[in-house]
Amino acid sequence: MTPQPLPSALPLTDRTRHRRLREQGSLARADLDAILDAGFLCHLGVVIDGRPFVVPTVYGRDERWLYVHGSVASRSLAGSTPVCVTATHVDGLVLARSVFEHGVNYRSAVIHGEARTVTDPDEKLEGLRRLTEHATPGQWTYARHPSRKELAATTLLAVSLEEASVKIRTGGPDDGDGPDAELGLWAGTLPLTQVWGAPVPDPLLPPDIPVPAHVARREGTGQG
Amino acid sequence: MTPQPLPSALPLTDRTRHRRLREQGSLARADLDAILDAGFLCHLGVVIDGRPFVVPTVYGRDERWLYVHGSVASRSLAGSTPVCVTATHVDGLVLARSVFEHGVNYRSAVIHGEARTVTDPDEKLEGLRRLTEHATPGQWTYARHPSRKELAATTLLAVSLEEASVKIRTGGPDDGDGPDAELGLWAGTLPLTQVWGAPVPDPLLPPDIPVPAHVARREGTGQG
Repeated sequence: MTPQPLPSALPLTDRTRHRRLREQGSLARADLDAILDAGFLCHLGVVIDGRPFVVPTVYGRDERWLYVHGSVASRSLAGSTPVCVTATHVDGLVLARSVFEHGVNYRSAVIHGEARTVTDPDEKLEGLRRLTEHATPGQWTYARHPSRKELAATTLLAVSLEEASVKIRTGGPDDGDGPDAELGLWAGTLPLTQVWGAPVPDPLLPPDIPVPAHVARREGTGQG
Repeated sequence: MTPQPLPSALPLTDRTRHRRLREQGSLARADLDAILDAGFLCHLGVVIDGRPFVVPTVYGRDERWLYVHGSVASRSLAGSTPVCVTATHVDGLVLARSVFEHGVNYRSAVIHGEARTVTDPDEKLEGLRRLTEHATPGQWTYARHPSRKELAATTLLAVSLEEASVKIRTGGPDDGDGPDAELGLWAGTLPLTQVWGAPVPDPLLPPDIPVPAHVARREGTGQG
């Protein structure tokens, strides 16, 4: 199963065209990939009875598809359903001289597509593998794989990565060369990072089972 | 402007009733408040032309209303619009013996309501104050307040906190007392925390302006 690669530039569509802060938009697929690979939790939006529902869920991806654990939204996802999947990383606060210029440094990917319920057993297993490895590299080969029954009880959705909107904001505030610079106020950014902690063993775990290397090595490293 | 307090229990509605993993649901308003107060970024979902749009944005709150910076969704938010606002904190990965039992420790609040565009200047200023203080306590009294022109150029939305769905997952994996415990695999959680870094001054800042105490004291503390 070698997915067809997508063009390296994201298409500009009516949904992905940035209406404001254009300078923050990126049409590079490499930026989309990097944002998706930096995290494992997204917010999945669906429409139910004309109203929006937004639920957090985990994801994985290949070159062509975003795979989303779909149980959280299962009541709404029969067949092909319009979805919006957004992955956001917060890198810090932008503290300006004026309240008006305050902001957030962030990276976000907003993916528009139709949710396809994955039914093919091979694709489902491969999608789950990608999802598992995406959150914890090395875990798929370590843990017990899904049984046929478990696989049937799992809802996996695929969303095409074709249409996406990427926004990135970096750097300091924008009011350093305006009249507000005369106010004598401090301005800058306050970075925010996600860090993996020490593994916490299940209380039921026998003491002689060591933390596997692929889990242990994450402690103290950044995520996002 | 003293908002009317809401009941301490969240109402069970067709939208907030948990369809799965009921044990993770909470109807305590205190849990909702705690989740909202632990962060400053939410995902705002709206429906445009029948399709979902999910965008990240900052928020603040009082006892009654969630205030959301609305410019990101301004093209869609004329008048009273159904919205779903979701705030999620990821506390770690749940690594089980089987792939099927893997999960995420998290806290999420899903708020359902209609977005009301705040037009009253007093409420708008107070909403922006709450939003600013929510992200950076102490910043509203430190930074320059919005001018009349800036206030007019800011879109602030209010969403009632009346109807919300709260979910919290904590603890280790659930397969420690089943047959998979015999596999001899490590299982537990890998905590993930958000930490504030050292303030980065704007390059245009004169060197004699100190980092204010309310910003400096966050360095090294957790967020979320």
